[in-house]
Amino acid sequence: MSELDFDELNFDLNFNKMGNGLVPAIAQDHESGEVLMLAFMNEEAWRVTRETGLATYYSRTRKTLWTKGKTSGNVQKVREIRVDCDDDSVLLKVEQVGGAACHTGRYSCFYKKLNGNEIEIMGDPVFDPAEVYKK
Amino acid sequence: MSELDFDELNFDLNFNKMGNGLVPAIAQDHESGEVLMLAFMNEEAWRVTRETGLATYYSRTRKTLWTKGKTSGNVQKVREIRVDCDDDSVLLKVEQVGGAACHTGRYSCFYKKLNGNEIEIMGDPVFDPAEVYKK
Repeated sequence: MSELDFDELNFDLNFNKMGNGLVPAIAQDHESGEVLMLAFMNEEAWRVTRETGLATYYSRTRKTLWTKGKTSGNVQKVREIRVDCDDDSVLLKVEQVGGAACHTGRYSCFYKKLNGNEIEIMGDPVFDPAEVYKK
Repeated sequence: MSELDFDELNFDLNFNKMGNGLVPAIAQDHESGEVLMLAFMNEEAWRVTRETGLATYYSRTRKTLWTKGKTSGNVQKVREIRVDCDDDSVLLKVEQVGGAACHTGRYSCFYKKLNGNEIEIMGDPVFDPAEVYKK
């Protein structure tokens, strides 16, 4: 049992706000503070995340539950869960296994920096997606 | 003219992904790295944010553009803009004027920490909302 395993919460997340049963969830490196990615959770993803201690989201394109890192091995171990003032957003402080959250092989998904009118790519991939995802 | 004033971008954010013309935007303290809040932008909010250098969102409840801090004075000066791998999420690194992003008067909106099945309130308000918002 993970220390983050709690099934009877004393409050409810507001899954109705977005109109599609989802809430946005931010994953942040629990040590560096870097924001790694943003994804969405439905009620099941929220429960599975708490029960397993592994960040689990809802894929809007594949319409399925998605435990981050299931394919790549780069899972996110949840160290702390925060909820915002309106109970409609989640912040996960995670240990990012493998040192990369992004499917491009980079540490953070937010690697595109606006520089004037241009996009500047920040950070090199730490793994080769073609190898990891066997594309 | 702000250094973040650029009107002809060489790429487009994907405002179609969510189906309602919005993208989620995270505001992060540019110095401490703390995640302050999550809100949404429509295309106009995205443009105004870049043109003014002040974080501007779209209020889903009020259905209007919303320059954060317009009422409270606690504006967010945008120091850096990041976009994620799929061009469907924005990360603003901001200077949070007044030391509080949350309408409850707290530094961060993510002040509710899950502790077992309980919510633990983290951080005291730095201003009195009743005073600031004249409720």
